[in-house]
Amino acid sequence: MDYRALAVLGRGLVPVDTPLLRADDQGLTRGDGVFETLHVRAGQPWLLGPHLARLAASAAALDLALPPAEALAALVREVVAGSPPQEEAGVKLVCTRGPETGGGPPTVFALLFAVPDALRRQRRDGVRVRTASLGVAADARSGAPWLLPGVKSLSYAVNMAVQRWAVAQGCDDALLLAVDGQVLEGPTSTAVWATDDGVLCTVPTDTGILAGTTAAHLLDHAADLGLRADRQRATVPDLVAARAVWLCSAVRGAAPVRAVDGVALRSDPGIAAGVRGLLGFPG
Amino acid sequence: MDYRALAVLGRGLVPVDTPLLRADDQGLTRGDGVFETLHVRAGQPWLLGPHLARLAASAAALDLALPPAEALAALVREVVAGSPPQEEAGVKLVCTRGPETGGGPPTVFALLFAVPDALRRQRRDGVRVRTASLGVAADARSGAPWLLPGVKSLSYAVNMAVQRWAVAQGCDDALLLAVDGQVLEGPTSTAVWATDDGVLCTVPTDTGILAGTTAAHLLDHAADLGLRADRQRATVPDLVAARAVWLCSAVRGAAPVRAVDGVALRSDPGIAAGVRGLLGFPG
Repeated sequence: MDYRALAVLGRGLVPVDTPLLRADDQGLTRGDGVFETLHVRAGQPWLLGPHLARLAASAAALDLALPPAEALAALVREVVAGSPPQEEAGVKLVCTRGPETGGGPPTVFALLFAVPDALRRQRRDGVRVRTASLGVAADARSGAPWLLPGVKSLSYAVNMAVQRWAVAQGCDDALLLAVDGQVLEGPTSTAVWATDDGVLCTVPTDTGILAGTTAAHLLDHAADLGLRADRQRATVPDLVAARAVWLCSAVRGAAPVRAVDGVALRSDPGIAAGVRGLLGFPG
Repeated sequence: MDYRALAVLGRGLVPVDTPLLRADDQGLTRGDGVFETLHVRAGQPWLLGPHLARLAASAAALDLALPPAEALAALVREVVAGSPPQEEAGVKLVCTRGPETGGGPPTVFALLFAVPDALRRQRRDGVRVRTASLGVAADARSGAPWLLPGVKSLSYAVNMAVQRWAVAQGCDDALLLAVDGQVLEGPTSTAVWATDDGVLCTVPTDTGILAGTTAAHLLDHAADLGLRADRQRATVPDLVAARAVWLCSAVRGAAPVRAVDGVALRSDPGIAAGVRGLLGFPG
């Protein structure tokens, strides 16, 4: 990842290699903070409102005081301002609980990055995924707020580990399953699929998954493709039977899933083109 | 928490409030790093060898390159050197994957802190705990290395959330259970108990729990108390039947568990005194 600009709340733009955080920042020592990753197109953050809403929900679940949404939006716009409008980019917006000594204040910053070639390739050529159990039942987290269902916290060590594991197995990414085989999500993405009976689907959030902003955008516009939108529980055989399957995330967009555990998936060219059109990412 | 000194690998002692980490350090943006917390007594880190061994095992599971153990030991000794020998303290040793831009090098530092009064009180007066499901089966993690069983990573958002939740329920700490009710561990501690038939027990690591250094020290010396040592799976009724139960961690030592979900536990005074003696913490 190549970071190109850094804006710090209350401080403005500083060089990316600026030493910024104290050693006792709880975002670091405890993974105790929240973040969002946004796509930047035509010099503007995309879906900024939904991302800030999700950040606020994550922060509320962690009992973490966020700055006002307008201040966060201004911070994102500040870091994006230096990005050439003809180039797509990404922004990572981070808010931690701040230094433990003295108890705060929160550390808030936004990083601008160039879209990695690997993600652009996945968007274009698709991904082969390996399933991995998350060890939880699909119903285990919805009644257990202490497990932080749906929260985009900084504690991503397992997400990173399962991606490394899938790559070591010769795949591009992982697909996390509940212990009973139900599809949950990718480590950094949301599963979306189109069924033979004309439904564009994603996984319901009562499974504890993160509510995907890109997936929500697709489902909100399913009617434009002549599809109905629904959130349904699914298994791997449901994905194998689907007309097309994607892993969706803010910067990757919708990466067509080519195979799950070596089993090739279908990809209806009409729907694939329709989904690409709804997202409007550069080729 | 009151941090008093900071030593950075390759840099030596710097003020605790020094801005140290870049915004793109993966220890921060992904909770991608490992740590250990050690007790400091008589001016020396306690159980340094076992802590460094566990740090190395955690790093290996994350495919993270650690500096040599001697360099880490020297770093811990450097930050401890300023601590008055008559005062107990704690050290947090952290190693992250380092800045994402450029891919490293790892960020390595040690923080010295005063033992919080709350932990000293728990050591002396004990804790009332609230059980909380971790949402996993006791057997779910041992064959799933991507779930990082037994790894002390920086991704502690759930550990912190479940502690906050337990405190909000009027308790001092949480006790995590598997979905089938088996005892796992505390969010920052290991469960240890003494049975009526003379066994000092903790939970086996094939449940995915962190292997506790303080618990291991107690089990290694169980014979000094006339007890056998064993690692056994247990349920809450097993704890209720035990002669005594503790939550053990490096700085807290062994905090007697007074009650689980409001049910009072036994505490055999002889064994309690024996365990205190084995740990040798200040009153």
